[in-house]
Amino acid sequence: RFGLAEEADQVGVVTGLAWTSVGGDLLSIEALRLPGKGRMKTTGKLGDVMKESIDAASSYVRSIAPEIGVKPPQFEKWDIHVHVPEGATPKDGPSAGLAMVTSIVSVLTGIPVKKDIAMTGEVTLRGNALAIGGLKEKLLAALRGGIKTVLIPQENEKDLREIPDNVKEGLTIIPVSHVSEVLEHALVRKPEAVEWDEVAEEAAAQALAKGAGGPGAAAH
Amino acid sequence: RFGLAEEADQVGVVTGLAWTSVGGDLLSIEALRLPGKGRMKTTGKLGDVMKESIDAASSYVRSIAPEIGVKPPQFEKWDIHVHVPEGATPKDGPSAGLAMVTSIVSVLTGIPVKKDIAMTGEVTLRGNALAIGGLKEKLLAALRGGIKTVLIPQENEKDLREIPDNVKEGLTIIPVSHVSEVLEHALVRKPEAVEWDEVAEEAAAQALAKGAGGPGAAAH
Amino acid sequence: RFGLAEEADQVGVVTGLAWTSVGGDLLSIEALRLPGKGRMKTTGKLGDVMKESIDAASSYVRSIAPEIGVKPPQFEKWDIHVHVPEGATPKDGPSAGLAMVTSIVSVLTGIPVKKDIAMTGEVTLRGNALAIGGLKEKLLAALRGGIKTVLIPQENEKDLREIPDNVKEGLTIIPVSHVSEVLEHALVRKPEAVEWDEVAEEAAAQALAKGAGGPGAAAH
Amino acid sequence: RFGLAEEADQVGVVTGLAWTSVGGDLLSIEALRLPGKGRMKTTGKLGDVMKESIDAASSYVRSIAPEIGVKPPQFEKWDIHVHVPEGATPKDGPSAGLAMVTSIVSVLTGIPVKKDIAMTGEVTLRGNALAIGGLKEKLLAALRGGIKTVLIPQENEKDLREIPDNVKEGLTIIPVSHVSEVLEHALVRKPEAVEWDEVAEEAAAQALAKGAGGPGAAAH
Amino acid sequence: RFGLAEEADQVGVVTGLAWTSVGGDLLSIEALRLPGKGRMKTTGKLGDVMKESIDAASSYVRSIAPEIGVKPPQFEKWDIHVHVPEGATPKDGPSAGLAMVTSIVSVLTGIPVKKDIAMTGEVTLRGNALAIGGLKEKLLAALRGGIKTVLIPQENEKDLREIPDNVKEGLTIIPVSHVSEVLEHALVRKPEAVEWDEVAEEAAAQALAKGAGGPGAAAH
Amino acid sequence: RFGLAEEADQVGVVTGLAWTSVGGDLLSIEALRLPGKGRMKTTGKLGDVMKESIDAASSYVRSIAPEIGVKPPQFEKWDIHVHVPEGATPKDGPSAGLAMVTSIVSVLTGIPVKKDIAMTGEVTLRGNALAIGGLKEKLLAALRGGIKTVLIPQENEKDLREIPDNVKEGLTIIPVSHVSEVLEHALVRKPEAVEWDEVAEEAAAQALAKGAGGPGAAAH
Ligand SMILES: [Ca+2]
Ligand SMILES: [Ca+2]
Ligand SMILES: [Ca+2]
Ligand SMILES: [Ca+2]
Ligand SMILES: [Ca+2]
Ligand SMILES: [Ca+2]
Ligand SMILES: [Ca+2]
Ligand SMILES: [Ca+2]
Ligand SMILES: [Ca+2]
Ligand SMILES: [Ca+2]
Ligand SMILES: [Ca+2]
Ligand SMILES: [Ca+2]
Repeated sequence: RFGLAEEADQVGVVTGLAWTSVGGDLLSIEALRLPGKGRMKTTGKLGDVMKESIDAASSYVRSIAPEIGVKPPQFEKWDIHVHVPEGATPKDGPSAGLAMVTSIVSVLTGIPVKKDIAMTGEVTLRGNALAIGGLKEKLLAALRGGIKTVLIPQENEKDLREIPDNVKEGLTIIPVSHVSEVLEHALVRKPEAVEWDEVAEEAAAQALAKGAGGPGAAAH
Repeated sequence: RFGLAEEADQVGVVTGLAWTSVGGDLLSIEALRLPGKGRMKTTGKLGDVMKESIDAASSYVRSIAPEIGVKPPQFEKWDIHVHVPEGATPKDGPSAGLAMVTSIVSVLTGIPVKKDIAMTGEVTLRGNALAIGGLKEKLLAALRGGIKTVLIPQENEKDLREIPDNVKEGLTIIPVSHVSEVLEHALVRKPEAVEWDEVAEEAAAQALAKGAGGPGAAAH
Repeated sequence: RFGLAEEADQVGVVTGLAWTSVGGDLLSIEALRLPGKGRMKTTGKLGDVMKESIDAASSYVRSIAPEIGVKPPQFEKWDIHVHVPEGATPKDGPSAGLAMVTSIVSVLTGIPVKKDIAMTGEVTLRGNALAIGGLKEKLLAALRGGIKTVLIPQENEKDLREIPDNVKEGLTIIPVSHVSEVLEHALVRKPEAVEWDEVAEEAAAQALAKGAGGPGAAAH
Repeated sequence: RFGLAEEADQVGVVTGLAWTSVGGDLLSIEALRLPGKGRMKTTGKLGDVMKESIDAASSYVRSIAPEIGVKPPQFEKWDIHVHVPEGATPKDGPSAGLAMVTSIVSVLTGIPVKKDIAMTGEVTLRGNALAIGGLKEKLLAALRGGIKTVLIPQENEKDLREIPDNVKEGLTIIPVSHVSEVLEHALVRKPEAVEWDEVAEEAAAQALAKGAGGPGAAAH
Repeated sequence: RFGLAEEADQVGVVTGLAWTSVGGDLLSIEALRLPGKGRMKTTGKLGDVMKESIDAASSYVRSIAPEIGVKPPQFEKWDIHVHVPEGATPKDGPSAGLAMVTSIVSVLTGIPVKKDIAMTGEVTLRGNALAIGGLKEKLLAALRGGIKTVLIPQENEKDLREIPDNVKEGLTIIPVSHVSEVLEHALVRKPEAVEWDEVAEEAAAQALAKGAGGPGAAAH
Repeated sequence: RFGLAEEADQVGVVTGLAWTSVGGDLLSIEALRLPGKGRMKTTGKLGDVMKESIDAASSYVRSIAPEIGVKPPQFEKWDIHVHVPEGATPKDGPSAGLAMVTSIVSVLTGIPVKKDIAMTGEVTLRGNALAIGGLKEKLLAALRGGIKTVLIPQENEKDLREIPDNVKEGLTIIPVSHVSEVLEHALVRKPEAVEWDEVAEEAAAQALAKGAGGPGAAAH
């Protein structure tokens, strides 16, 4: 089933695009949310740059938590595991950043990812999309694998003129400059924001902590 | 006794299939559940890819915990040790993933694994079975070792036409595409699910925590 | 968008200047403040010297916390992530120290950094600016990238005579000897100090801790 | 004194058998139990495989704790240190597994190990004995060192026909297939089991924890 | 400003003396004390031997804490950061030990270090000064940098006869055999001791801990 | 002062004997006891074998704690730092084990070590002395350094016939087989034992812990 688009919209499963000396390939990215203690685990023979891109993706998602309906303290009660099969194939590079963000958002919100979309693009800590390499090989792999829509960084739009016409006709190619656009295209529905006022929450937590010892005494 | 099927149905002991330059071999995989603190230990001169396949297996099992009768918080009170004898032989690769899942499920549920079954297949975080290499050598080793039934990934079914007839006649070969099928074939009985509502449980835990200080005072 | 000045004043985003064998380049430095536990994360394929320069920058900022309106214990409730895109490009050296300090101060205070300023300079634990190399290449990259103002270490002022006139005319070049000057030039407004008396705070904290058990008894 | 049998029955000291390119040797294995926090320390220039064999031995012993009279939570209140003198000589391999188990059981129970016994054999997580190499050299070293009884894995019994008669006459050689047989032969007396019902104990612990806040209020 | 004496007496900043194949140099050593949890951080591309010399200096200072007015438990409430600019220059060796001690004492006591003094010498865990190499090159660098007074280990006094007269006339060279002499010469004033009776303090702490639960009951 | 005997009886300072390709040398071993959390630190460019010998020495001392007047829980309230100057000289090997034990016992008990004694010998976890190499070179270094008494392992006594007569006449050479003999010869007075009944202490601690919540309620 590898090298092919997913068969159904799934939570936490995103199709990325890889590029190696032997051509492009689809890259299935899987995230899992588990009851835990705020730990992040990554597996799949990932190089340091790809691991760092997961760190950046994770921090970006934490920074927008309330916008996707997650209260920040919740992060300390979940573990997140990001895995990239096939486990024996080495993978590296930052270009799966947008896919990592999408996968993590999907798993945190429980909103499935559309099955016939693929994406490529580095992500910054502010959610901006940065240019990637191997666009042609990646688009060919997407077409071959039955993908319908591909999100690429705005910065790579200029490279589209070198892409063969049949590829551009077989795929809907959407240049994006920010994660917000990615989520809009990739998730089956929009996450709902939750209110979160850091200062107010902290004050409330402290009041509660103090009260644990005090009120009983006052009631005598 | 190595290179031979197990002599009895045992809890936590699963027969995997290894493939090296000198042929196939049976691989005994042992898991142990100990009272502890949620720690995972792996031993047996395992390479990084096999260690990661244990991580993926473990996360997958945690993600289906209620379905096998385990409440998620229970994971923080057990240690799990996965060992692959013989300790001096280096082992690597992702193809023992399904066996790792089976071993961990067996040890968590206390349900024994059938002694004359062997299995091979990479596992994803969603419990899907991925293709492996060395199918012919692995099946030969299974036959030689007295195994009756072998579970292989659905993706490898196409490779069966290259397998000698005597091997296919001596073994029941079952292609599987998901862990659920593996557990059905490998465990001596089906695990019973337990109800688990994450949101409700968390609310209850918080109410209990708050009550520890408060109700006593109110009763005065 | 890389190699160009930022498009807007942003919180936590600072433009540094890099210098390699193939010339100078703009270096976007991003910090993020997250609810957390005092952890510091750094990503972007950073060498050990650049990581240490972030450590030094971070300690310096902690040492002046009250001056920028942050009470020291607050540091144990935030995580800070510093990332330097592009993630596949190795970066090293201490010369981004002043930019690291500025980025961290911006993210802690919520005060944006001016979008058309760039800076280069090592920082000491006392906030002093130390000389850097590659001044000419860095200034050329700044000019090319649309930067208007560049802060350089006072110790490098003597190197300005080797810089072509058109570069010096196209940029406002400001030599600085201390972080205080950097913040004045780079932030859109001055941080407001908060009062912090370590000894008094500690005494208050201890009194509160003791009181948790005591006052109830006294009230009988 | 090295290369010779122990002079007295001691707690935690077991004689193993090593095999190198220059012949066999006695290997003194020492364990110590200290008041602590569940930490395990290993010293003596041990290779990774030998360290893993100590991990496996330790997990096996934890898994049979009640059978040797130790309640599982007790493990979190002790540190165990396993040392293999002579500290400058590198040691490796899994074949000291049975000796490691015996040493740890002895130190946990306080039951001494017979001084004129030696043993060799890998151990699995279920306490099974696996075959080792260098049987002839190891038996020669045992004879030379004044050992009276040697425990070897059942799987190695077939190799006894290649052992010179004088060696077989000078030693009592006992093939074993499980740790239970090893302990019976090596310890001066049998450990007494303690009752331990994991589920019941946990329930009791939780009741106690809850009671700390609650019962007082109920008594008013 | 590097390679020159400090411009003012500063807290936590000490001038050491380095010696490399290209001659001697001044080495600015900076320590910072931050509210924290007893953590020690070191930066500046320091080799393992220099890091260990900071460990030794730190332990020595902890061992004399009451003599410099610091109660030992205070160490668990501070973090200390020792940095040696310039961050891109590798530094190693134990000869900055006395300077490390002085820097840490200065930062803990808040007493400034005299700006025109430099020092070289390894330190032991008892505060003894041990001989160093490169005395001539170090003294030349001190003279060149505007230093007035140099502290050297007593064990190096015999090497002074090989030092040119102009160097010996331009500098006040003081041989020292213990940290106590170093502090007397280097700090602008003597630290005041604080009383500390470990046994009494511990007893008091325990009494307080027990009382937290008890007195309330007694008052009924 | 290095290469010479100590000038006074000191707490925690022991003279060991090193042996390298260029001859023997005195090795000053320093231990320091600090208020802390049970941490052990080692410095002085020590190789892994010497670090492990310190681990073994430390565990042995913990195992005899009551015999030297130290209650075991006390170990969790102290940090111990073992340093071997000169910091730039690499040191390795297990032969300083007896000296490490002596240094740690001295620092824990506050009993000084005799200044004109030196010692060499590996130590086991039971406190036994094992043979060392380079006896001749070590004794020559001891004589040269003004040492009066040298403790050597009993197992090395046979090597004394190869030692020149003038060395044997200039030194009191005492073969020892156990740490108990070492301490008797090296410390200026014998440590006093303290009573310690692990089981009783634990029961008392548990009773206290339970009582913290209970008695108040009972008193109403
Ligand atoms: Ca593929
Ligand atoms: Ca990529
Ligand atoms: Ca085998
Ligand atoms: Ca495999
Ligand atoms: Ca660039
Ligand atoms: Ca730089
Ligand atoms: Ca030997
Ligand atoms: Ca062995
Ligand atoms: Ca310099
Ligand atoms: Ca130096
Ligand atoms: Ca020396
Ligand atoms: Ca030695």
